[in-house]
Amino acid sequence: MTQVEGDTPGARGALRLRRLGIDTYQEAVVYMTRDCHVCRAEGFVAQSRVQVTLGTHHLIATVNVVSESLLGHGEASLSDSAWRALGAEDGALIQVSHPEPLESLSVLRSKVYNQRVELEGWREILADVVEGHYSELHLAALVTACAGDRLDLAETIALTQAMVEGGERLQWPCAQVVDKHSVGGLPGNRTTLIVVPIVAAAGLTIPKTSSRAITSPAGTADTMETLAPVDLTVEDMRRVVEREGGCIVWGGNVRLSPADDLLIRVERPLDFDSEGQMVASVLSKKIAAGATHILIDCPVGPTAKVRSGVTAQKLSERLEAVAQALGVYARVHVSDGSQPVGRGIGPALEARDVMAVLRCDVGAPLDLRERSLALAAEALQFAPGAKLADCREMARQLLDSGAALRKFEAICRAQGGLREPPRALLTRAMNADRAGTCVAIDNRHIARIAKLSGAPRAPSAGLELHVRVGQRVESQSPLYTIHAEAPGELEYAAGYAAQHSGIVIAEDR
Amino acid sequence: MTQVEGDTPGARGALRLRRLGIDTYQEAVVYMTRDCHVCRAEGFVAQSRVQVTLGTHHLIATVNVVSESLLGHGEASLSDSAWRALGAEDGALIQVSHPEPLESLSVLRSKVYNQRVELEGWREILADVVEGHYSELHLAALVTACAGDRLDLAETIALTQAMVEGGERLQWPCAQVVDKHSVGGLPGNRTTLIVVPIVAAAGLTIPKTSSRAITSPAGTADTMETLAPVDLTVEDMRRVVEREGGCIVWGGNVRLSPADDLLIRVERPLDFDSEGQMVASVLSKKIAAGATHILIDCPVGPTAKVRSGVTAQKLSERLEAVAQALGVYARVHVSDGSQPVGRGIGPALEARDVMAVLRCDVGAPLDLRERSLALAAEALQFAPGAKLADCREMARQLLDSGAALRKFEAICRAQGGLREPPRALLTRAMNADRAGTCVAIDNRHIARIAKLSGAPRAPSAGLELHVRVGQRVESQSPLYTIHAEAPGELEYAAGYAAQHSGIVIAEDR
Repeated sequence: MTQVEGDTPGARGALRLRRLGIDTYQEAVVYMTRDCHVCRAEGFVAQSRVQVTLGTHHLIATVNVVSESLLGHGEASLSDSAWRALGAEDGALIQVSHPEPLESLSVLRSKVYNQRVELEGWREILADVVEGHYSELHLAALVTACAGDRLDLAETIALTQAMVEGGERLQWPCAQVVDKHSVGGLPGNRTTLIVVPIVAAAGLTIPKTSSRAITSPAGTADTMETLAPVDLTVEDMRRVVEREGGCIVWGGNVRLSPADDLLIRVERPLDFDSEGQMVASVLSKKIAAGATHILIDCPVGPTAKVRSGVTAQKLSERLEAVAQALGVYARVHVSDGSQPVGRGIGPALEARDVMAVLRCDVGAPLDLRERSLALAAEALQFAPGAKLADCREMARQLLDSGAALRKFEAICRAQGGLREPPRALLTRAMNADRAGTCVAIDNRHIARIAKLSGAPRAPSAGLELHVRVGQRVESQSPLYTIHAEAPGELEYAAGYAAQHSGIVIAEDR
Repeated sequence: MTQVEGDTPGARGALRLRRLGIDTYQEAVVYMTRDCHVCRAEGFVAQSRVQVTLGTHHLIATVNVVSESLLGHGEASLSDSAWRALGAEDGALIQVSHPEPLESLSVLRSKVYNQRVELEGWREILADVVEGHYSELHLAALVTACAGDRLDLAETIALTQAMVEGGERLQWPCAQVVDKHSVGGLPGNRTTLIVVPIVAAAGLTIPKTSSRAITSPAGTADTMETLAPVDLTVEDMRRVVEREGGCIVWGGNVRLSPADDLLIRVERPLDFDSEGQMVASVLSKKIAAGATHILIDCPVGPTAKVRSGVTAQKLSERLEAVAQALGVYARVHVSDGSQPVGRGIGPALEARDVMAVLRCDVGAPLDLRERSLALAAEALQFAPGAKLADCREMARQLLDSGAALRKFEAICRAQGGLREPPRALLTRAMNADRAGTCVAIDNRHIARIAKLSGAPRAPSAGLELHVRVGQRVESQSPLYTIHAEAPGELEYAAGYAAQHSGIVIAEDR
């Protein structure tokens, strides 16, 4: 780089940091003034992608140009997330320079144009993703280019392997490590919090890392977080698993398949993901977590994520084949996905259902209990020589005897303490406009209303279902109750619900 | 919406604007404080998408949360582009509310999952795009979902029609209106500035609207702008065409196919576009501009946008079929795209080549002259009963007699005045490291270097080629000279050039 006539103290092209305190969520932004000597020398304008270096750390950020009333001569600022990522302090000197051109973008482009990408290509793309070199536009293009059946089996295997290689990999001192995943799309299907303690109580090892919600109103980590801390380090997670045989923690701190976490960041606002990438996402996380035996719950229903038995079959074959290619065993359990599970939708509301099942309360949602028992039995069957009928009986005994509840409480204590889920201050019941029999509940509309009410960001937000398919509904009786923490969100969710028919369908029968 | 306890003067949920002067280029951002009553009531956090209303205007913006040192109690701010779009003033009151959920996102999602989208679906998507409801992530997903041959003929026709309907449509008082387009990917291929005055001098009507560069170092509008104003209103454009029979203006003000302009905004940083969408983009702009006869230059070469005769054939058929379906006539002219055209690459450098050809200078680049004459002859052939041989002769006479130059100068004057293209202050020659015969010049590397040097944003930046394929090169003789306006960009471009071999290839023969 050319020596620029210095009009600030310090190194070539250096700018002095001043914190403005602008929170852009995870987007890295560097704020520079229009007459800044670095902007002039390097040709930076608003929206330029630049490399910001502070000591030995650097990241790629987007330039926003600010007026001289916000920053003085020779000063720059960073968005809060970039400030944290660089460990910045007021007065520190940064260098802002042109980033290296991203060679992996030509690989991405070839994928966009429907060409196959080999293992080396995926490694290049994911390395740049993990390093934060891709803008959100590039991430959106990557997710979209992989959607719609555009990854074949070999590509999915390669992508999965590259994802595993791109992060940490846990190892456990036992031959068999069980893990569990749900394909999702079914609101309230929070079986993990019941399956893990049953399996751990049976003496198997199940170190469960979970994600926060991607496009749903609650992820397992969101729900678990209303009951116990989930934000554990790898060391803390290891300690919990050594003591209790299982854990339910957020995977984000553990840096398992970190590329996946970054892709999720754009999948959430886009509200879609890709099948091949979903397979890679699920299996890479589990393989990196050290799993040898992976149980995958795949609910099928007209408004679930997987809508037909044919699709479920295809997905199962893909998951099992990719797992085998990577040296682990995966089994897919196809389940009914025709309506939401349990009563509550949203982190705290789902946590209450989970606790009711673990406590064997009289009013506990039976569907959540039965689904959890079926999955736990399948997981117990991973043990050498186990028979399914015995496993079913064992799962039921572990739940009904209170052993699973005690194990769950022990896991929560080991993770930092069991706590009571919060309750929303604001609720509104939505009533039936006619009498009849409930013939359908739309999972997507239910999830949408729960999200509009603030879930999962607002942990007590969501909705509580008062009817199940097959039940009799009276005119003006409550179908569901919306819970919210902010009045605007209550109105927003209720407004959407009032405008859309077909959320809960009652007919004469 | 619920009445919120007012702690500011004015209406429900109102915030008072204070300009911070943050330039985010075209991204609409609203800045709100963390303890802002609207954020609390509505549940807004950093990165929320919100509707901002000022009087009768509204737009969708992204929330950035700022510290209380930047904005006072009850205050908010907008990024510069959003400030302009809403016609904001300091002290004005805005409402910030939840946007309507975007129903067209389900259509976009179906396209991502490889389903066909019908005319009504494209209308819904494009209406939301034009209204500014899509975030950049959604635009990136849309562009990517259409790339890689994922739009069939019927979809491309529907997309084109929806794009035409989504904007203004010009009409001209003559039966035949000629237009011209180049598929691109060939640096320096600036024939439009020569073809338009020849065709207009022949008495045909050719109201040319051009784009700025998308992924190239110069668009026709960028090059023309170094010679004359291009930022004309529809009324001014109409006046120029009525007087001179032709014009060369930037299409952005004319709101022809405005969805296309918004898609280009993400195509530029993504550095790719989609074939079907390109067909829709080209034809929708021309049809909206009132063209009846459209000539499309399609350069083919190993490093051009279209790399093979087969691809060119496919693209030609698609362009001609979509045009026919929409009631206009398109003819594709396949040309040699094996190396850059002319000497200069970059807005001002290309403008100098154009003027040399129009002035019939002894040293004018012959390739640019011959390509322009071939295209002008094809365009003249659109006239009823015209024969190709006669048209070739007519084009040559109009150029050699100075009639085309006089017409070009008249067009420039009518657009606001002919001016001299700027010259860069900084240049650096890049020399051959061996002697030999030039056997290849890589269009993509050449375009990349010109862009790194600052083109098209810096109008005098780019590069000047000193060799052509087939010419003898001596060791240490200059192959090309980089031009730049900022020292950082000169270094950046030269650094990239030094690191990459195969930009200009010399071999013993």
